[in-house]
Amino acid sequence: LALTSLHAQTVIAAGENRATEIGVPINISVLDAAAHLKAFSRMDGALLGSIDIAIGKAKTAALFGMATEAIGEFCKPGGTSPGLEQTNGGLVVFAGGIPLFAPDGSLLGAVGVSGGAVAQDREVAEAAVAALSY
Amino acid sequence: LALTSLHAQTVIAAGENRATEIGVPINISVLDAAAHLKAFSRMDGALLGSIDIAIGKAKTAALFGMATEAIGEFCKPGGTSPGLEQTNGGLVVFAGGIPLFAPDGSLLGAVGVSGGAVAQDREVAEAAVAALSY
Amino acid sequence: LALTSLHAQTVIAAGENRATEIGVPINISVLDAAAHLKAFSRMDGALLGSIDIAIGKAKTAALFGMATEAIGEFCKPGGTSPGLEQTNGGLVVFAGGIPLFAPDGSLLGAVGVSGGAVAQDREVAEAAVAALSY
Amino acid sequence: LALTSLHAQTVIAAGENRATEIGVPINISVLDAAAHLKAFSRMDGALLGSIDIAIGKAKTAALFGMATEAIGEFCKPGGTSPGLEQTNGGLVVFAGGIPLFAPDGSLLGAVGVSGGAVAQDREVAEAAVAALSY
Repeated sequence: LALTSLHAQTVIAAGENRATEIGVPINISVLDAAAHLKAFSRMDGALLGSIDIAIGKAKTAALFGMATEAIGEFCKPGGTSPGLEQTNGGLVVFAGGIPLFAPDGSLLGAVGVSGGAVAQDREVAEAAVAALSY
Repeated sequence: LALTSLHAQTVIAAGENRATEIGVPINISVLDAAAHLKAFSRMDGALLGSIDIAIGKAKTAALFGMATEAIGEFCKPGGTSPGLEQTNGGLVVFAGGIPLFAPDGSLLGAVGVSGGAVAQDREVAEAAVAALSY
Repeated sequence: LALTSLHAQTVIAAGENRATEIGVPINISVLDAAAHLKAFSRMDGALLGSIDIAIGKAKTAALFGMATEAIGEFCKPGGTSPGLEQTNGGLVVFAGGIPLFAPDGSLLGAVGVSGGAVAQDREVAEAAVAALSY
Repeated sequence: LALTSLHAQTVIAAGENRATEIGVPINISVLDAAAHLKAFSRMDGALLGSIDIAIGKAKTAALFGMATEAIGEFCKPGGTSPGLEQTNGGLVVFAGGIPLFAPDGSLLGAVGVSGGAVAQDREVAEAAVAALSY
């Protein structure tokens, strides 16, 4: 199973719908399981500084198959892996990046959202991922 | 006048339609007039090595307001500006990047296409730009 | 509305006047709303290490439309966004970068000041921004 | 003798006056003898892609104490130093960068101009340097 353009468009549309509902223009990216960019969209009015963060969140989630904030647990003060966030050319370790899994449990890719408060970014990313139902 | 998501989606859809017609899966990016990423799509089967090229072509066309191959004229052997392609963190100076202009002649942004032969990339980029009619 | 050279010169002159008043030679940069350099000046005697910081502060403020120290709140210990300062090729998240807004509330760009103590840099940046009255 | 802000302002004003006379908005940078940025100005309407080039030309001229096109002679096909333009993090080796000398012949810094055709950039840079008379 591989991530398709249809998957990516579905995920992005669902994320942007939720972002519109909560009134926060966001950047949203979809990467494949190898962390290569599959699709990206910046909503009108979204912060320019969030482009890099949206892609970084998806990269982080794809490379480790985990939500970004779960990776943040490893590198927070007192965590097992201090400095982890500086590997791989820089990770983004706060919420808003979520891996995408196929029905068989294999990693399809990841989505990354940035533009609002962290809780808003996570809400949008969750809505985006939820659209990828089988 | 600013580049909107609707502009970007229109441009990408037209490019992907042409790419499908000629049977070449491509990567296509749309950047705004300041060379910030607005939207991106990688068609299923498109080369991974072309992701960076598609974005680089659009960056190059946006930064100079010119088609990428026109910039290539300046830095080809015997041209006026040897090494120009190494500025700005690296430019892409062969065809496939085309600036987008508003009806008043101001720069809106640029589209970049990569995935096929250079002539195919240019054909797809031209079809993409042509969709942005007013 | 776009940032003009006249805006930039006005902002820089006001900042340098304040810096002279408090006896601290500073570096000052003005970037447009897309974080591209518009103008820069290093006063005689200003620290070389502050050139990059002055530009980085303005970049940070422009990319997020917020004062640099407000962005620092997000990534301080216990903040919502640990590691945020490492995105976008590196942000500067202490005081001295302030966004510039047009009368209609749209982002015009940002100013960044570095060379003195942080409180001095902020004072100079505030004087610079205040000169951009309409 | 050291490059002062007054030198830099004089050089930039003269360059911008010439650019206005020939109707080409340009980017102009002044670096000191150690190739650190002293002042920069982007005229309204100047190409974004030329910001990096204007700074790169001044860097190149300052690092070698020679006009950029003279350095280009060393690395052109058949020249003595192929690849020279890739050293120092990238040089710009076409015209528009000119060193600034003090009356005693010591290097003060350099000016770099970009935004027009190469011949125009050189003309503006020459006018800028000529203003630094003693």
